[in-house]
Amino acid sequence: MMSTYIFGHKNPDTDAISSAIIMADFEQLHGNKEAKAFRLGEVGPETQYALDYFKVEKPELLTDDLSNQTVILVDHNEFQQSADTIENATIKHVIDHHRIANFETAGPLYYRSEPVGCTATILFKMYNERNYEIKKHIAGLMLSAIISDSLLFKSPTCTEQDVKAAKALAEIAGVDVEEYGLAMLKAGASTTNKSEKQLLETDAKSFNMGEHTVRIAQVNTVDIDEVIARQDALENEMNKAIAEEGYDTFVLVITDILNSDSKILVAGSDKDKIGQAFNTTLENNTAFLPNVVSRKKQIVPPITEVLS
Amino acid sequence: MMSTYIFGHKNPDTDAISSAIIMADFEQLHGNKEAKAFRLGEVGPETQYALDYFKVEKPELLTDDLSNQTVILVDHNEFQQSADTIENATIKHVIDHHRIANFETAGPLYYRSEPVGCTATILFKMYNERNYEIKKHIAGLMLSAIISDSLLFKSPTCTEQDVKAAKALAEIAGVDVEEYGLAMLKAGASTTNKSEKQLLETDAKSFNMGEHTVRIAQVNTVDIDEVIARQDALENEMNKAIAEEGYDTFVLVITDILNSDSKILVAGSDKDKIGQAFNTTLENNTAFLPNVVSRKKQIVPPITEVLS
Repeated sequence: MMSTYIFGHKNPDTDAISSAIIMADFEQLHGNKEAKAFRLGEVGPETQYALDYFKVEKPELLTDDLSNQTVILVDHNEFQQSADTIENATIKHVIDHHRIANFETAGPLYYRSEPVGCTATILFKMYNERNYEIKKHIAGLMLSAIISDSLLFKSPTCTEQDVKAAKALAEIAGVDVEEYGLAMLKAGASTTNKSEKQLLETDAKSFNMGEHTVRIAQVNTVDIDEVIARQDALENEMNKAIAEEGYDTFVLVITDILNSDSKILVAGSDKDKIGQAFNTTLENNTAFLPNVVSRKKQIVPPITEVLS
Repeated sequence: MMSTYIFGHKNPDTDAISSAIIMADFEQLHGNKEAKAFRLGEVGPETQYALDYFKVEKPELLTDDLSNQTVILVDHNEFQQSADTIENATIKHVIDHHRIANFETAGPLYYRSEPVGCTATILFKMYNERNYEIKKHIAGLMLSAIISDSLLFKSPTCTEQDVKAAKALAEIAGVDVEEYGLAMLKAGASTTNKSEKQLLETDAKSFNMGEHTVRIAQVNTVDIDEVIARQDALENEMNKAIAEEGYDTFVLVITDILNSDSKILVAGSDKDKIGQAFNTTLENNTAFLPNVVSRKKQIVPPITEVLS
């Protein structure tokens, strides 16, 4: 029996892991008995907190060659963020809430993208449209994904639909949103127990912008200075990644989840332009960006603009 | 007041024209008072038959620069099939039923693609999901688009959903599907009153496949020999287009809408490979392809396969 492989992006965050599990459940309910969730990388402490809380096993790490296999992508579409063999797979369905780029299929497919804050919010709508039952642990994972992507509804990517979904899901999951949400975010926000490499790799994505390849990592913290104290070591690792992976520029976005601000740390050849993107000049390779918390909505578009 | 520009692909067929008009109506019902349908080219006789029958004006020809304008694409996504200034527009929404390729946005968007036979079938579902009233002329255009794309349900692209939608729409539109459908298809299938250039341009699309650019035109007829009688003149025009537009290969698909077969006529540098794509050898630059009527499902995929 052939599997339908369902997975989120590399360096999976809570939405990428949860949405794969949720979509596999949805497909099973829809009669696709071959649907199975996978992950493209290690599970971070925030996601692990959610999985433990709702007693769900993490998905299997994807190691199979996907050539001629049927796949469903959740929470991403750009091939460089996907499985290495994605170009030879048959993509049957995509559920996503990001821009579309570096994505191509040979044939028609299902694609559902909406500019909401979280893939799980779209999945929530899909269950409701078909009157599928949302089990308690599925509701818990949907809620966790929304809290994670919206930083407890503080991100500008967060829409009314995300808030409405979260309220309904908290009832089914039986948790207090604020209390559960803050505990989950804090579980993922400790930086002292992580190496520089871990800080730079846990939530990092590559973007092709014009002729430039930009790596943008984001780390959540309750204390920006705790991360900036390690600036030299971080820059060393960033420059190493640039040399080894061929990025032109590496941007680390350090996000204060309590105050909803960020500081960026930049390495590579487009440093001046990155400053320009935010109407500022980098000082000591850094810039403080008040009220910026969303990579997708506040970081990627202005950098795309100056580099394309 | 800024418009929301809504349009289908270049060389518009009945689905491209109808879906633009339908989506503009949908957006109006949804509260978007700036929604307006446009077209990217001349209206063919089949589409004109449908517009006349249901007393609908053809959309305005799009001539505006779309830079920084908001647009909604229907029935296509590939930029080379879209407006010339599409790369600088803000794409808000796409409704389509084709493969996704050569498509890119800077930000998140609504994208709804389903592997059904016709864009209008997806629009029909969207009206029903929101309980919007489908007016008689809108139903007529939806039905016309489905009949056109499915060649009266004979194309392998046609799904159960298309058939079901068409049945429901015929009731609202007040027509007999077979009788109306055949009259509409025949209105578009006369080739004797068209120049070679018209036959090659009316329903033509460009595809980037690997390093190759392939132009694939399709013409519907009730008599393949009537078209093949003009082979020399057609080949001249095809070679001229190759030289002027930089295509590598030009494929004309001549489709017999009564018997549901096609003959291809091929010009350009990839002739041998085009034969291979259909497990045959071209004779005098032509090959008869029994039961082949769908460019999307039966022509593009095998050619993509051999050229990519």
